Amino acid sequence: MTVCDIIRKKRDGFELSEEEIFTFVNGYTGSVIPDYQASALLMAIYFNGMSDRETAALTKAMAYSGDTVDLSAFSGLTVDKHSTGGVGDKTTLVVAPVAAALGCKVAKMSGRGLGFTGGTVDKLSSIPGYRTTMDVSEFLSIVDRVGMAVVGQSERLTPADKALYALRDVTATVSSIPLIASSIMSKKIATGSDSVVLDVKVGSGAFMKSIRDAEKLAEKMVNIGTAHGINTSAVITDMNRPLGYSIGNNLEVIEAIKILRGEKIPGLYEECVSLAANMVMLVKKCTYVAAEKSVTEALSTGKAYDKFKEWISAQGGDISYIEDTGKFKPAKYSVDVISEETGYICRMDTEKIGICAGLLGAGRKTVNDSIDYSAGIVLAKKYGDRVNRGEPLCTLYTNNEDGIGDIADRYRAALDFSADAPETLPTVYRTVHNQESI
Amino acid sequence: MTVCDIIRKKRDGFELSEEEIFTFVNGYTGSVIPDYQASALLMAIYFNGMSDRETAALTKAMAYSGDTVDLSAFSGLTVDKHSTGGVGDKTTLVVAPVAAALGCKVAKMSGRGLGFTGGTVDKLSSIPGYRTTMDVSEFLSIVDRVGMAVVGQSERLTPADKALYALRDVTATVSSIPLIASSIMSKKIATGSDSVVLDVKVGSGAFMKSIRDAEKLAEKMVNIGTAHGINTSAVITDMNRPLGYSIGNNLEVIEAIKILRGEKIPGLYEECVSLAANMVMLVKKCTYVAAEKSVTEALSTGKAYDKFKEWISAQGGDISYIEDTGKFKPAKYSVDVISEETGYICRMDTEKIGICAGLLGAGRKTVNDSIDYSAGIVLAKKYGDRVNRGEPLCTLYTNNEDGIGDIADRYRAALDFSADAPETLPTVYRTVHNQESI
Repeated sequence: MTVCDIIRKKRDGFELSEEEIFTFVNGYTGSVIPDYQASALLMAIYFNGMSDRETAALTKAMAYSGDTVDLSAFSGLTVDKHSTGGVGDKTTLVVAPVAAALGCKVAKMSGRGLGFTGGTVDKLSSIPGYRTTMDVSEFLSIVDRVGMAVVGQSERLTPADKALYALRDVTATVSSIPLIASSIMSKKIATGSDSVVLDVKVGSGAFMKSIRDAEKLAEKMVNIGTAHGINTSAVITDMNRPLGYSIGNNLEVIEAIKILRGEKIPGLYEECVSLAANMVMLVKKCTYVAAEKSVTEALSTGKAYDKFKEWISAQGGDISYIEDTGKFKPAKYSVDVISEETGYICRMDTEKIGICAGLLGAGRKTVNDSIDYSAGIVLAKKYGDRVNRGEPLCTLYTNNEDGIGDIADRYRAALDFSADAPETLPTVYRTVHNQESI
Repeated sequence: MTVCDIIRKKRDGFELSEEEIFTFVNGYTGSVIPDYQASALLMAIYFNGMSDRETAALTKAMAYSGDTVDLSAFSGLTVDKHSTGGVGDKTTLVVAPVAAALGCKVAKMSGRGLGFTGGTVDKLSSIPGYRTTMDVSEFLSIVDRVGMAVVGQSERLTPADKALYALRDVTATVSSIPLIASSIMSKKIATGSDSVVLDVKVGSGAFMKSIRDAEKLAEKMVNIGTAHGINTSAVITDMNRPLGYSIGNNLEVIEAIKILRGEKIPGLYEECVSLAANMVMLVKKCTYVAAEKSVTEALSTGKAYDKFKEWISAQGGDISYIEDTGKFKPAKYSVDVISEETGYICRMDTEKIGICAGLLGAGRKTVNDSIDYSAGIVLAKKYGDRVNRGEPLCTLYTNNEDGIGDIADRYRAALDFSADAPETLPTVYRTVHNQESI
């Protein structure tokens, strides 16, 4: 069977065999199959989708295309968490120490952020001294000793996914649920955890705009996890507003520390509890209710906060910044964005708000851009809040005041107001588990 | 708008503007747009189709991507004929001289055949002396003097179509009706005739397997013609059996000569009359009935046969071969294929029969292969004929007897038999005209 036959088969709606999918992935990664045939196949997949069997095969082919991490020494206690990406999402900084404090092993490899905000590794890099790169043996020894470690992703992890993602990015084939699902899960399989909790965001700041699409993606990823013997939970969470009140690297670290010290910041607190409880539930094989109880205790007693400091310290971070967050260097400029309207905030275009944070310096446009760790936004008012004309909506932080007026206008344009209070939005919509995990 | 935006727009089912289509075609031909983006867009077109406006724009962009032929000196009398490709199709050799004998001007540029049988230019090349290449001024002077000329297509004609076709061929995006229609019509526009008759084949030996698809293609091409001010007729004709009784280059020339001498070979005769009458009708702006009357007269009186000889002679062909077709060098080997069954032929897999002719030497697999002009098949029995076990079904002609037994088996396998006579199949299903042509 030639590559053209494989494309034709998918184009005509037939199921590809595992062998055909491996031929494609290995051929493409090995430069035997040219870009133009790969992109035609990706577009055919975009239109005709992939069955669970096909998606599992694609994931497997990509997962084993490069280095893999062996966590078998941790005898089933390892758990990973992955978010499909949102604005103000600092949950990893909270849920990883909570899970580690409760006996889970979190060996996390995180990508650098590309787009409007930084990734987890960028947020951690804003803590002076914190090391995001180290060799695998040191990484594993910290996981063993502390119960967790978070480093940047190796360049040699899932090269097939990297190559295909780069091609999808320039051929309008990114937004395909089986392709997104297999891309995420291939990295989770390569990094070797026994259990995975997926945070599938839905709403104006997320890739998935509808609950139905988020559910499809969640189910697809849980099915891939099942096919690969990984205990998997997918939690569908709201991204119609930023998560918490802070957007930007050290601003988010500071907010995460507040949660770890027991503050119950609305939305952010509930979401952290839900994700951490799912992690504990998968590892401990207990009920969700029991897991949730341990999680809230770990947060209220300071057990998780202590674990957080132990972890940051183990990776070289300066703990004095954690104990006194006032030490984080603030941005040179801060500007309040004043409301020109009176009413309830009934819609936040969260992606646009994320873009504002990026324009202030919190994100990077290309992989080589540097990030301004102190830049970002602290929200004063969120979805559902009542605002009077003249009141501040948020504060913008930046070290480069050029165009800050325009950014303030963009921020205002991202909000809609209504005379009456809008419907309340949930934080967590639903959770999808696989057989093994419930 | 970036190329990725154009792909996304088509992927999401929106209509592309003429500007966007020109950006794509010119960008691709100018190597600004890479293959992988072009193939992704072609696959999106495969799935979402193209409106008549989009198809007309694509055709225009390809038509003017290279050289064009100016036939305006012939003051509206020029007419071209194009077939979507079939087995045993020698109609050009008949209808062009008929139309020229009746005052039309036929300035035809024909492609070389690639696949199971030769193209018109290959068939003509089997006449000793016939020149298929000459400069444009000589070509036009023959058209002026004789009323017709047929040469090979210039390499510089529609380079955008050539480049896109080559890409479609390796990305499973050939069989898209708007892409087929625009590819054919771009060449017709570039070669400059005022009127065009399209022979859209349907059946087991044609690209279009269903009448519905053939109709869609016919309508699409007629609409493109309309958009470009070309009088266009599309005749949907049967390809559930080879056309006529001969397949192969000089064998088909000999059969065409029989028609030109007034023989009424079933199927082939009716189809030639229909195509030629459409050509005359479009040029003379007369009724079909009047055009058909002139055409049958031109065939029965020898007027078309005389024009044929005048044309072949003008292009250097040795007329003695036309006057005595016994002069054509026969193939070294001829083998009768004997029926192993008794009954009516109720199905002919015409594509398979074409492949048999190709295996005998009548076609070329790659552009550089040479063709055996005397190789081919002469049918003894066709669809609907009654055959007794032991009777010959056809005669195979070749200069290379290796594997001839296998080819005979393949031929037999291409036929199905039934106890009762099958339904009669029409030669012409229907004709589609545009506004201007009726």
